[in-house]
Amino acid sequence: MSAHRRAFLKLLALGSGALAACRQKAAQLPSLLGAPVRPYGDRSPFVHAVRQTAETTRTPEQASSLTPLADTYGIITPSSLHFERHHSGVPTIDPADHRLLIHGLVDRPTIFTVEELKRLPSISRIHFLECSGNSGTGWRPTPRPGVQGTHGLTSCSEWTGVKLSLLLEELGVQSAASWILAEGADPAKMTRSIPIAKAMDDAMVAYAQNGEPLRPEQGFPLRLFLPGWEGNANVKWLRRLKVVDQPYMTREETSKYTDLMPDGTARQFTLTMDAKSVVTHPSGGQKLAGPGFHEINGLAWTGRGSVARVEVSTDGGATWKDAALQQPVLPRAHTRFRFEWEWDGSDTTIASRVTDDTGYRQPTRAELVAVRGLNSNYHNNMIQAWRVKADGTVEYAVI
Amino acid sequence: MSAHRRAFLKLLALGSGALAACRQKAAQLPSLLGAPVRPYGDRSPFVHAVRQTAETTRTPEQASSLTPLADTYGIITPSSLHFERHHSGVPTIDPADHRLLIHGLVDRPTIFTVEELKRLPSISRIHFLECSGNSGTGWRPTPRPGVQGTHGLTSCSEWTGVKLSLLLEELGVQSAASWILAEGADPAKMTRSIPIAKAMDDAMVAYAQNGEPLRPEQGFPLRLFLPGWEGNANVKWLRRLKVVDQPYMTREETSKYTDLMPDGTARQFTLTMDAKSVVTHPSGGQKLAGPGFHEINGLAWTGRGSVARVEVSTDGGATWKDAALQQPVLPRAHTRFRFEWEWDGSDTTIASRVTDDTGYRQPTRAELVAVRGLNSNYHNNMIQAWRVKADGTVEYAVI
Repeated sequence: MSAHRRAFLKLLALGSGALAACRQKAAQLPSLLGAPVRPYGDRSPFVHAVRQTAETTRTPEQASSLTPLADTYGIITPSSLHFERHHSGVPTIDPADHRLLIHGLVDRPTIFTVEELKRLPSISRIHFLECSGNSGTGWRPTPRPGVQGTHGLTSCSEWTGVKLSLLLEELGVQSAASWILAEGADPAKMTRSIPIAKAMDDAMVAYAQNGEPLRPEQGFPLRLFLPGWEGNANVKWLRRLKVVDQPYMTREETSKYTDLMPDGTARQFTLTMDAKSVVTHPSGGQKLAGPGFHEINGLAWTGRGSVARVEVSTDGGATWKDAALQQPVLPRAHTRFRFEWEWDGSDTTIASRVTDDTGYRQPTRAELVAVRGLNSNYHNNMIQAWRVKADGTVEYAVI
Repeated sequence: MSAHRRAFLKLLALGSGALAACRQKAAQLPSLLGAPVRPYGDRSPFVHAVRQTAETTRTPEQASSLTPLADTYGIITPSSLHFERHHSGVPTIDPADHRLLIHGLVDRPTIFTVEELKRLPSISRIHFLECSGNSGTGWRPTPRPGVQGTHGLTSCSEWTGVKLSLLLEELGVQSAASWILAEGADPAKMTRSIPIAKAMDDAMVAYAQNGEPLRPEQGFPLRLFLPGWEGNANVKWLRRLKVVDQPYMTREETSKYTDLMPDGTARQFTLTMDAKSVVTHPSGGQKLAGPGFHEINGLAWTGRGSVARVEVSTDGGATWKDAALQQPVLPRAHTRFRFEWEWDGSDTTIASRVTDDTGYRQPTRAELVAVRGLNSNYHNNMIQAWRVKADGTVEYAVI
């Protein structure tokens, strides 16, 4: 008897009790007309999931907000729930006034309007976007209680725009070019240095997200998009790309977004996001209705390519079994994994670990700390565990 | 010299003029903080695309609204812009009160709560949903002016739910079962008969769309989802599935949603949507800025499998060339196609045609009418053309 067949027998017991109630309800079908069609829809008043402000936020403009991963489904993140990270708030930009200047080591420095960029050959790709501070809670002794707090700085969208390589090839990149300085139009002028190899590979200047123009908090009307690279480098409200011959050592790649190692040196330009996975259901703060069948599901991703395998443990990491991966598995995109679990009602700890198509496997906290020490704020991709207690409540755990 | 390289030279001419203006603008960068993070995002006040009410609507409750296809990108339709078709308005349903009854020719008739369904093994798939009345304007002498009016009754989302086959297998389908009667909880009690073969194949009871719970106008909290089948059969606000031994000949499959043929007989249960494509840019009502490079792009889909090929004509159908297909091409999903076009500024007519992986190719209007006559309201999948006039304006056309 399969796990979910056993679960059904439990549900049937519930169902037979509910049958009479439902027949009563049948007489209460609405007899008045419902709401009319409308120009732009909204969600049900019974749906309440929202982005949560990270507890480290001191002001709402220099702040981040976290995607409610425990309340999402599949791989697409609703744009209204895409995580945020702003250094000086979200500027309101009229796209008719916005320009993108590409200059420096190019033969033909050029200013583009948004409409001019939209005339050019376009591409659309489904990719995750993750802040490198995501799951940084793992470095600290006080864990956040749920998956929104631990892992909510990642989201996944279909992005549309122009390949940056197309722009650069047309403008004529000079032989000395090795980096690109990207600058945003926010008051803080967010600025990052990007190796030109990435610019010529899969980088894009994006103007749309999930079928509509970029949301303001995702850089409307233009953002740099670097598939698989840390969120901060995907400069929003993009106004300038300067082709240069060295990294510019901005604030965002020196005092911030570097990783202090145990020997006192710092890793710099650690731009690619490592493979990571997390169980989103059941996860911290949830409560299981009782023993029996529960689907364990969650998300896995890697900036280095595609998810090859996700394993789930339901015994605190003693043994691991393969989860099913939602198809198609897309490169540098969230991958939903699912695992059928018959919970016997005892206190246990569950976790997931991902292996990507380079062969790299997500480490335990001990394995990660052995290499990286405890001085980092960014790039923590340790296995995240959840303790399921006998009363059904779920708590943060480390294995 | 490639088409888009020539376009660049034109853009460069624009750009050099704009350079001085931009440098002036650089002094005007915002110096005040922007907007703070917020719990649930919204689009930019500069983005205005909305669903449009179909001109056949007599009341806003018994109505349809159309997706602004000319203003969408990629393959995912924003949920707020997903087309609507309601027969008695959108009911407001508290998911805690909602039930799904499955009964009839099953061994264990069962009532499910929404929470019980969410505990079961889930799947997520990206699929289009199309009203069979979509592009029905092609049957009539007075065309609608733009692609929102002609083709806006199709949208594409990532749907999550429980496979209907799993539910039916667990409840024990009896040998006499051959159809399923699906009933919605709207005041009109939308009711359709579904062949059991589809129910046991890829049908699902869906509870989520694009990463969040179904929108109210898409059936919150539960809808039947039948990949590739006409929208009307994908019963929203699903409350009941009765397993039966014959179709129930409801209003929706007799006086409506049948296709009157030239000989006076009617096609009935024409549930699978045929292969269709349409150019969304440039399309009716748009205006091209001038001669030079323009990307022609649009959407193609088929209820019978996957899009195998899309061809574009820029000479009124005299010759056809292959368009590029956005990867991955997913079964029963919108597929974005793109074609690089150097417009010489002369009056011409553009169009697209799709071939699906069964080998079926989208017909011209003449080919379609030769078989179906002109008595139909539904299932018009003729090639849609657009006339590009020398002044850049774009109009409805037939080839």
